[in-house]
Amino acid sequence: MPNYSIGLDYGTNSCRSLIVDLENGRELGSSVFPYPSGVQGILTEPGDPHVARQNPQDYLDGCESIIREAMAQAQQTGSAFDVSDIVGIGIDTTGSTVIPVDQDGTPLAMQERFSENLDAQVWLWKDHTSFHEAEQITELARETRPEYLAKCGGVYSSEWWWSKILHLKNTDLEVFDAAYSFVEHCDWLPAVLAGNTDPLTLKRSICSAGHKAMFNADWDGLPDVDFLTQLDPALADLRGRLYQEAHASDTPAGELCDEWAEKLGLPAGIPIAVGAFDCHMGAVGSGVKKGTLVKVLGTSTCDITVADEAVDDVPGLCGQVDSSVVPGMVGVEAGQSAVGDIFLWLVHNLVPDSYGADAGEKFTAMEAKMKDQPPGASGLLALDWNNGNRTILTDVQLSGLLLGQTLHTHAHEIYRAYIEATAFGALTIINRMEEHGVVIDEVVNTGGLSLKNETLMQIYADVLGRPMRVSKSEQTCALGAALFGAVAAGHASLADLQQRVVSYTDTTYQPIPENQIVYAELYALYKTLHDAFGKTGWSGSLEHVMKDLIEIRQKQR
Amino acid sequence: MPNYSIGLDYGTNSCRSLIVDLENGRELGSSVFPYPSGVQGILTEPGDPHVARQNPQDYLDGCESIIREAMAQAQQTGSAFDVSDIVGIGIDTTGSTVIPVDQDGTPLAMQERFSENLDAQVWLWKDHTSFHEAEQITELARETRPEYLAKCGGVYSSEWWWSKILHLKNTDLEVFDAAYSFVEHCDWLPAVLAGNTDPLTLKRSICSAGHKAMFNADWDGLPDVDFLTQLDPALADLRGRLYQEAHASDTPAGELCDEWAEKLGLPAGIPIAVGAFDCHMGAVGSGVKKGTLVKVLGTSTCDITVADEAVDDVPGLCGQVDSSVVPGMVGVEAGQSAVGDIFLWLVHNLVPDSYGADAGEKFTAMEAKMKDQPPGASGLLALDWNNGNRTILTDVQLSGLLLGQTLHTHAHEIYRAYIEATAFGALTIINRMEEHGVVIDEVVNTGGLSLKNETLMQIYADVLGRPMRVSKSEQTCALGAALFGAVAAGHASLADLQQRVVSYTDTTYQPIPENQIVYAELYALYKTLHDAFGKTGWSGSLEHVMKDLIEIRQKQR
Repeated sequence: MPNYSIGLDYGTNSCRSLIVDLENGRELGSSVFPYPSGVQGILTEPGDPHVARQNPQDYLDGCESIIREAMAQAQQTGSAFDVSDIVGIGIDTTGSTVIPVDQDGTPLAMQERFSENLDAQVWLWKDHTSFHEAEQITELARETRPEYLAKCGGVYSSEWWWSKILHLKNTDLEVFDAAYSFVEHCDWLPAVLAGNTDPLTLKRSICSAGHKAMFNADWDGLPDVDFLTQLDPALADLRGRLYQEAHASDTPAGELCDEWAEKLGLPAGIPIAVGAFDCHMGAVGSGVKKGTLVKVLGTSTCDITVADEAVDDVPGLCGQVDSSVVPGMVGVEAGQSAVGDIFLWLVHNLVPDSYGADAGEKFTAMEAKMKDQPPGASGLLALDWNNGNRTILTDVQLSGLLLGQTLHTHAHEIYRAYIEATAFGALTIINRMEEHGVVIDEVVNTGGLSLKNETLMQIYADVLGRPMRVSKSEQTCALGAALFGAVAAGHASLADLQQRVVSYTDTTYQPIPENQIVYAELYALYKTLHDAFGKTGWSGSLEHVMKDLIEIRQKQR
Repeated sequence: MPNYSIGLDYGTNSCRSLIVDLENGRELGSSVFPYPSGVQGILTEPGDPHVARQNPQDYLDGCESIIREAMAQAQQTGSAFDVSDIVGIGIDTTGSTVIPVDQDGTPLAMQERFSENLDAQVWLWKDHTSFHEAEQITELARETRPEYLAKCGGVYSSEWWWSKILHLKNTDLEVFDAAYSFVEHCDWLPAVLAGNTDPLTLKRSICSAGHKAMFNADWDGLPDVDFLTQLDPALADLRGRLYQEAHASDTPAGELCDEWAEKLGLPAGIPIAVGAFDCHMGAVGSGVKKGTLVKVLGTSTCDITVADEAVDDVPGLCGQVDSSVVPGMVGVEAGQSAVGDIFLWLVHNLVPDSYGADAGEKFTAMEAKMKDQPPGASGLLALDWNNGNRTILTDVQLSGLLLGQTLHTHAHEIYRAYIEATAFGALTIINRMEEHGVVIDEVVNTGGLSLKNETLMQIYADVLGRPMRVSKSEQTCALGAALFGAVAAGHASLADLQQRVVSYTDTTYQPIPENQIVYAELYALYKTLHDAFGKTGWSGSLEHVMKDLIEIRQKQR
């Protein structure tokens, strides 16, 4: 008898569902719901580009739409499909995406008086208004609680929980005072479906708590009262209205309540897993295991692996949290601030129409021209910092660099240089992990770029010096969420489910030895520029850089 | 009674003539002749991008065409025009553009047996095949004759006389052995018109000899026999078949001979001035004087001023030669390897068609968008080294750099960054001159960019912190040549003629104080990158560069 699980994946601009057969990974139904509010689902403020908020009602409307639509598809696809065979539901979301809520756990945004107030809406992960607060938190922790920073790579981010809450306190006291508590998006949705949004008792995820709220068993959960008091006494006060426990996603957050069962057309009582972030569940849906790094390749990347509990703290990473990815192992998270975004910026702003009429044609033409050139033949070298550097420098105050241009440099050569730069950025992350004992033997890739861009994949294999596999599912985040739904329901172990359900495309990209040699030379130059412009306290000489690039260019042409 | 002079300007792709009224600068006739041979007048070798040769017959055919056409125009324009009122002829050419000749001074290229041999043709200034020989000459001079290098900025170039001749000796002995002597293009043409091309007696110019052949009165003319022997005994042997004297362009090279008088439709006997290089005569045609720097703004730039004889040697310049520009003063020459060429590269390779259908429309649209942005608002900074750096680093093994890109950087912002980078390059040259006592109070610009590009001119004024004037004549090189024709004829002094004939457009670009402040900050960062990537022995820190640019950007937006 077949069993199914539903995975829900709440992204930045839309949410999507997946119904998967737990025996073989067959995907029976899937649906996307673009958030209707704001610009592509994001509430913005014309005067401040840092503002990025969301309307929580979009999440609820989306939930109904994507589940009902996926079920309709499943019923058409599989004649044997029966809703009673759905064993669990799992949910991932972006994060840290923070919702100010009242005592019942209802978002303040849903109160009439706050409906037009941006500060009362959901604070999306990419809201960067809190950069001053992030600096303040980093500074205080560096002085008084270095252990807090060690788990999040050494720098606390404006994208994270406490920065956002403190910024709200500093800038809109009315909303802050009206907020009884705050809930992560990935915790709120399971709570809604389970029919208990009480902020004091709803199940909080270790993924969001550990990676974004400095929650750790080593220091009794959330940051201590003294620390929070120094930031703002109001935060210390809030601590008691948050949580003392956080759970991995193999834990049920509850069971589908009657109200939502009716809305969704599902039987009540289906177990719902504790939520987690999209990339963490995407890593699970891509078969993450010790020695395997999963790269979620999109506009930016999220790089996730798991390690034994005994692993060192790795400086410069986004975070290391016990059970945040695979229960019982340490989830290790890193990321690149811009990958696909750099290519999109390039194609939209700097690629002439002689390459094609639209972005798709231009990419195709550039990739075709690129194939004839060996590595290093353009003489170009770039830094992939157009959106700052998330890992390992954790510095948003960095910018892009392109070096080696002549009067004959073409757009497709620049595109290739940026692909290479993002690959060098990826290698820098892997090297940092390995220096601290987190060994990476292979890389599994998921996300649009990995399925669409063969040129990029081969360059990555050559630069990273490791085999590169590609997840077959185009919905690995929702797939991972679905697996956790089944695990939380007690249906099977995570390892068993991954074994049965996770699969890869037929192509494994293998490093080409002669390219590896050239890329090793180029990477040494990349690392020199990386350290020169990005590393505090660097001092050295750069006069060789342009000459070395010209020498490599001459050799490779 | 009016008097006229004819100026002939032999450029890289074409030659042009100008007939000017010496009383008031009125331009009566002008004509252009694109060289018919090769690609845009340049003979190339598909397998070697360094090769750039020319067909000497093009120079002769061009001479007839442009003089006859200009005279026809003059006769239409001015009813009073009479060829008997032409007092002199002056000629400028590119250089070092070297012609292998036989004992009669006839180019070997004109011999049947060599007509198809590229090595027997004219070696155009931009032929870079001799880069190894240039290094060899630089090295030997550095060790044994530092005084030779001091007059040409510290590095001997592959574009210059001895490099080319030595490379010919090294690579095509048949042609080298057949060459009785070698003549600069700017010396050969006056000799042809004067009817005496005997290599031993034709008048050689101090401009070419001093700037390109290490000729200087301080060491008895050309490099000594010992030095040349160490390079190659054949060069020492050649020395006796070259010249012992070199002359400024106020000296007659001879008088128009009967044969050429007939070809050109001019009376025989008109004095012909000793030739010089295009930019040197262009500086004269732009009113160069002590304290005034003339920038010939084109695909690259040539920057020329004059100084008292007592001036120091300035390291990193292209050359300092007594009487090479204005007789009796030291001609000081510098240059930027690429200016207009960078903008053309950008517009042809990296500007999408949303800016316009062709290069002209794209430039116009970019300049319009640029005007709304204050300096520093893009956060970008570039190095203007896409074609290496001529002054002050004298290093072709350098390349371009662009820094500060975000995901929102537009093509017109990059264009502006490159305009600024070339302005910073120009300032670096002026600063170097002033450090060594060559004071620059104002800048006069000539060449297409200075007439067409107001945005660029204002940015230059702001960056250079000096008033910027623009020559009114679009043919300042030919104008300067015409003035020397009259001076060599004894018609008037150069100073008098400049006073009467040289004029400027109505617009003088004045620095805008608030822009100067921001550009001073940006220039400090430019100079840091300039030294870091270009200066031998630099060591230092760069971690502030991106952060400073972001800070300036935030302040300026």
